[in-house]
Amino acid sequence: SEVKKIAVIAGDGIGPEVVAEAEKVLKVTEEVFGYKFETEHALFGGIAIDERGTPLPEDTLQICRSADAVLLGAVGGPKWDNNPKELRPETGLLGIRKALGLFSNLRPANVFDCLKDASTLKPEVLEGTDLMVVRELTGGIYFGDKLRRQGEHGEEAVDTCVYNVTEVERIVRQAFEIAGKRRKKLASVDKANVLETSRLWREVVNRVAPEYPDIELEHVLVDNCAMQLLRRPSSFDVIVTENMFGDILSDEAAMLTGSIGMLASASMGEGSYGLYEPVHGSAPDIAGQGLANPIATILSLGLMFRLTFGYEDAADAIEAAVAEVLDAGHRTSDIAVDKSQAISTTQMGDLIAAAI
Amino acid sequence: SEVKKIAVIAGDGIGPEVVAEAEKVLKVTEEVFGYKFETEHALFGGIAIDERGTPLPEDTLQICRSADAVLLGAVGGPKWDNNPKELRPETGLLGIRKALGLFSNLRPANVFDCLKDASTLKPEVLEGTDLMVVRELTGGIYFGDKLRRQGEHGEEAVDTCVYNVTEVERIVRQAFEIAGKRRKKLASVDKANVLETSRLWREVVNRVAPEYPDIELEHVLVDNCAMQLLRRPSSFDVIVTENMFGDILSDEAAMLTGSIGMLASASMGEGSYGLYEPVHGSAPDIAGQGLANPIATILSLGLMFRLTFGYEDAADAIEAAVAEVLDAGHRTSDIAVDKSQAISTTQMGDLIAAAI
Ligand SMILES: CC(C)[C@H](C(=O)O)[C@@H](O)C(=O)O
Ligand SMILES: CC(C)[C@H](C(=O)O)[C@@H](O)C(=O)O
Repeated sequence: SEVKKIAVIAGDGIGPEVVAEAEKVLKVTEEVFGYKFETEHALFGGIAIDERGTPLPEDTLQICRSADAVLLGAVGGPKWDNNPKELRPETGLLGIRKALGLFSNLRPANVFDCLKDASTLKPEVLEGTDLMVVRELTGGIYFGDKLRRQGEHGEEAVDTCVYNVTEVERIVRQAFEIAGKRRKKLASVDKANVLETSRLWREVVNRVAPEYPDIELEHVLVDNCAMQLLRRPSSFDVIVTENMFGDILSDEAAMLTGSIGMLASASMGEGSYGLYEPVHGSAPDIAGQGLANPIATILSLGLMFRLTFGYEDAADAIEAAVAEVLDAGHRTSDIAVDKSQAISTTQMGDLIAAAI
Repeated sequence: SEVKKIAVIAGDGIGPEVVAEAEKVLKVTEEVFGYKFETEHALFGGIAIDERGTPLPEDTLQICRSADAVLLGAVGGPKWDNNPKELRPETGLLGIRKALGLFSNLRPANVFDCLKDASTLKPEVLEGTDLMVVRELTGGIYFGDKLRRQGEHGEEAVDTCVYNVTEVERIVRQAFEIAGKRRKKLASVDKANVLETSRLWREVVNRVAPEYPDIELEHVLVDNCAMQLLRRPSSFDVIVTENMFGDILSDEAAMLTGSIGMLASASMGEGSYGLYEPVHGSAPDIAGQGLANPIATILSLGLMFRLTFGYEDAADAIEAAVAEVLDAGHRTSDIAVDKSQAISTTQMGDLIAAAI
């Protein structure tokens, strides 16, 4: 079959360690399923600031653009936290989203059986929780004009939140489509009782909704959603929302599953192009010690197989392999009840690769 | 002693029922402690739309302005949800905040012993949770310019988020002061890695912080805060944040305590002026049936005694009376384990009044 190109961004902290394990799994899936991949590594984030003086070097963008998908480890760390804006890893993150047109961030939040006790929620509340946050990723207050000026009451700062119907419609349609392949429920989250952008958002949702008559739609105000996620997490299926609300709610949703170290995410552009990364961060405190859990990154690779390449067999195999290794009782230290029994990052990667 | 004037806004749904019980308690505290109050009722919210064609009639504002404090039940309901903006209860709420200069919303979120099982969080995680969200209430994206316009990609909507140093400094100082009277920990929540208003916010916090050397300060990004509230709720003391983040986080914090039906809130203006209201909404589904729990409103009155009037004895008495009645096992239906044993709104009010 055709050779698929994957840009690989290891990034900072535990990024290189978890990405190495995902590459191991990639190699094995090639052998087992006969798919062909070509990987190209690129510098991004803190390491790019250190080595190239910018979080997002132009050749990194070129490598990503010429690939079919991007696999990202993690970026950032305290080392760069006090840098000026242009020299911060987050600036690279926002830049790559915009440059690659990654307008939709898919954040599945589900509960891993072996981790259900890791949640701070009661098991009976969590039971059956399996939701997906679809977050708009290239608009809203993240990308609107920002400025400082002198006002009547001293210096003031301004952020601008802008959405146009085209931007809203494209993410909303995607969310309806995704809901159609799941439990057919969509919660659109906004603050239409206060924000003009939310009123536009809601109008678009209501205009598009009749085209998806089999999807049960509800509008939920963002403050209420933050509450309902706690009260009835299992009743949500797909949640679609704008950039800033999605940032907050997807993290809340991930944390309530207790499985944050295991969750994958996809940031999709036009067509099937996507950037895949674990939900967890770069965890600089445990970097380089073989303590990191590579599962979220490996599952992100699975998501890439499913969403970008349509390699359902390989995606299923990855998910099954992860389940098998967990069922056999293997744990990295972050998820081990008895830390003394924990296995290392590479051991976990080896076991999953072997189970494919 | 001097006569204190209280503007009373019953509002919509269960508002009139819960406010009536708080007034009962007000009367008893007058008798027991010798304080003198004069109350004046005012129309606001949905009922004001129905009777006066506007959610916030001018004479309601006059009554509030000439009072020392305002007691509010609840406003809103599905009846008015599809009204044009100017004829919606929320517009009244935003209007009254701005008109009365209520720049700071204090939302204590603590766990009532008798309700700790009502939380969806595990009891051991919740143990010791007692936090206060200090939300900026008259600035930010709520009150910045809003508009619709035609853009390159169709119609677009714009919201503007503005903060000046004066606005930020006043709420931040108040939060430091409050933290000083509590466990001396302050979490300032922003999104300084993305928003200019958040960078201004953080600068002000850092500039003011050295004046409060005994307060332990941490900066928390809003997405991380949404997670940490779930992971380690008891580690928070005071959380200070801007309007939109505060809307979301205060509701999340309230819900995680499991005590949302019992939580009071205060919206403070200059000096000791304040508007006090329960955190819960107008619950139109149970209105007029004697099912509402008046405790949050009664505790809001207690907060008024404490924060506006400095009547600590009466405030203590109210809180003690609520605790006594709950300890004796009395429950309204929302908090009753055995609903058939539940008492009515007025019975609960009577018991608390009698216990003072
Ligand atoms: C690092 C930051 C800019 C980023 C965001 O807010 O989008 C992060 O929180 C995320 O969710 O990917
Ligand atoms: C009704 C709405 C405008 C209001 C707000 O967002 O401030 C409410 O959610 C609140 O928190 O008091």
